[in-house]
Amino acid sequence: MSDINPQRLLSDLRTLSAIGAQADGGVDRLAWSEADLAARRWFAERIREAGLEPRVDAALNVFGHMSGSAGPRLLTGSHLDSVPNGGRLDGAYGAVAGLEVLRTMVESGEPLAARVEVVGFADEEGVRFAIGLIGSLALTGELDLEQLRDGRDWQGDPISQVIASAGREVDRMLDAQQHMHSIAAFLELHIEQGPRMEADGVDLAVVTGIVGVYRQQVRVIGSQNHAGTTPFRLRHDAGRAAARAAAGLRELVQNVDPEAVANIGAMQFDPGGVNVIPGRAAFTLEVRHLEESVVHRIVETFNTNLETISAEEGCRAETERLSWVPPARMDPAQMERLEAACQELGHEPARLWSGAGHDAAILARHVPTGMLFVPSIGGISHSPQENTSDEHLVLGARALLRGVRAAAAQIK
Amino acid sequence: MSDINPQRLLSDLRTLSAIGAQADGGVDRLAWSEADLAARRWFAERIREAGLEPRVDAALNVFGHMSGSAGPRLLTGSHLDSVPNGGRLDGAYGAVAGLEVLRTMVESGEPLAARVEVVGFADEEGVRFAIGLIGSLALTGELDLEQLRDGRDWQGDPISQVIASAGREVDRMLDAQQHMHSIAAFLELHIEQGPRMEADGVDLAVVTGIVGVYRQQVRVIGSQNHAGTTPFRLRHDAGRAAARAAAGLRELVQNVDPEAVANIGAMQFDPGGVNVIPGRAAFTLEVRHLEESVVHRIVETFNTNLETISAEEGCRAETERLSWVPPARMDPAQMERLEAACQELGHEPARLWSGAGHDAAILARHVPTGMLFVPSIGGISHSPQENTSDEHLVLGARALLRGVRAAAAQIK
Repeated sequence: MSDINPQRLLSDLRTLSAIGAQADGGVDRLAWSEADLAARRWFAERIREAGLEPRVDAALNVFGHMSGSAGPRLLTGSHLDSVPNGGRLDGAYGAVAGLEVLRTMVESGEPLAARVEVVGFADEEGVRFAIGLIGSLALTGELDLEQLRDGRDWQGDPISQVIASAGREVDRMLDAQQHMHSIAAFLELHIEQGPRMEADGVDLAVVTGIVGVYRQQVRVIGSQNHAGTTPFRLRHDAGRAAARAAAGLRELVQNVDPEAVANIGAMQFDPGGVNVIPGRAAFTLEVRHLEESVVHRIVETFNTNLETISAEEGCRAETERLSWVPPARMDPAQMERLEAACQELGHEPARLWSGAGHDAAILARHVPTGMLFVPSIGGISHSPQENTSDEHLVLGARALLRGVRAAAAQIK
Repeated sequence: MSDINPQRLLSDLRTLSAIGAQADGGVDRLAWSEADLAARRWFAERIREAGLEPRVDAALNVFGHMSGSAGPRLLTGSHLDSVPNGGRLDGAYGAVAGLEVLRTMVESGEPLAARVEVVGFADEEGVRFAIGLIGSLALTGELDLEQLRDGRDWQGDPISQVIASAGREVDRMLDAQQHMHSIAAFLELHIEQGPRMEADGVDLAVVTGIVGVYRQQVRVIGSQNHAGTTPFRLRHDAGRAAARAAAGLRELVQNVDPEAVANIGAMQFDPGGVNVIPGRAAFTLEVRHLEESVVHRIVETFNTNLETISAEEGCRAETERLSWVPPARMDPAQMERLEAACQELGHEPARLWSGAGHDAAILARHVPTGMLFVPSIGGISHSPQENTSDEHLVLGARALLRGVRAAAAQIK
């Protein structure tokens, strides 16, 4: 049987990375931004070009399958959106590799091609609305886009309006939940986005599970006042309270569990004048661990500490849960098939937990799901420096092809 | 001799507070913004209405004097710009009261009126460009507006372009430095912006000196990376370094001198994604004290500590001085005259240092300068809650009228 076309895979990745490209080599395809929509049009065009039928649902997930085939099918792919000033491979690699796998199967006339569908998911990163995985949550029916109506993005635009306005050019919308009935399994290929595979010298890894990811918005409310005339003891400095809480995060997390990670990625003082004591401060908190109970213990400990600090500073704090994706276990049979696929290529894959959230974590709750990693150079991701060698990119797609064939063959 | 018109004073203050008014009662007249320019037009119109000649210089300071009079003159007034979401009295009160004083003298036909000029200064607050006192610095020749050409405001607009574009509607520009030759003294009336007068139950205060104000921009540079897959020990988290430095500010300052104050008013993490380790963090630092050496010792201690923390976090820090206004002493003769003016009204004024910077601090380096305070309710300023009772607002203007008369009489 024929194999994937390495030149076509790498060339498609290059072309896609030019959409939303930044001067420093990074990629900026914030969910449903102009660049993200251009990437979705480009992906649909590649699907059409391969003789497949492109379809789009209300979240603007882009799908491709052999037209006339009824399903059930094995879904493979990843997401097309990026973090601001992110890398060229996070998500894009799995989507393009999935397309290359299906194209290869169609071209070589494999009957199993009719049982395979490719996907480019929408808003996996969750930066625009700090929710994340909206594409796979909408597909699996876990999230009703209509219920998001009141949510707003970081510029104050309503979520549902952004999505609706972005979707205006789509002629015929795929019904996400009806569509989900035709999906029998999911395989996702992704870069590791961490340093472990490179450190251990492994070329492929089968993912065993994905950490749970908890995100919350924190607002500290104090009193805005004049920075020259208000003595320290009379201040209600929301900025100081936020800085104290942020400064102690790492020690607090490691005290609960040394394996857990957490991040404060955004921080802003309001009104922001050099000579004005901040009346308000806002920041985000993200906590990740493989066990649900550990994540919740960290969030509770942080919030209790935040409350104490805020009271000490004469402020009060509000926290609002933005999203919670529980830890996900990959399907043992899919893991075995992916392992066999790697071995077929002469590579003994590592078995790794994923510290990053993925669409596979959502799909795993609905259909037997498997996931494959290739190494990240220097472990860098969510950065313009994110990279993986061409050899590993090609190897990953070849392993995915073999895994897809094996998994599709199991679909009744 | 006649006294000021309380209704006219309070009514003008109300009208001015409607320019740039916010829904929460605050005022937003960022230097050279549309609202600030509207306030300057309004102020010039009131000057014209009073039968005085309005003049504008390149910084867009607005002046008013009896036309045909040659000088030298006593200048009185304050600034018309505000901090974002600031109060209705900071600056505006002194400018409107100065106009009311001059109007009163003109109406009652006092010959001394020809020796008085009123001013509405530009950009005292220094929020837009984090410089501050640009209006009085330009008037006194301490700052060449042309040299600011490369500076940029918080939205990236060049300073000189902003000022030039705002000044396009002015027919004939007053030459700031020639104008300064005609100014023989300066008196400024202002709200205290602090809690001391209210606490001590005094209605008027003569200012003895103004703290030195040092401002710097801090940038911490780390490495942007994925928050889920990068272990704590491998992070270069610019946000954590900035938060640690900010969290320790108060203790550091009080350790150097318990009388000093400092503020971190703006803080921002970059790129700002919930799941991205901040590669950069930026914040402002402001330090104030009555003695120059104390201010410098605090800034040095802070920067040394910042360097240590940044190194510990695998980051590096850059600091850039934005502005330095040295402490200023008020003129003893002006202080005595202002004291006598208060006593004439049956009030024994307090003698107070000012923790806030003022245009008077700049003018004091060039001409005999005096300053008068009225109490701030709750000591609140730079806030929509900033307020002073009508009784105190009227009393301050009455004292200013008497001080202006006494000071103008001394001008040869």
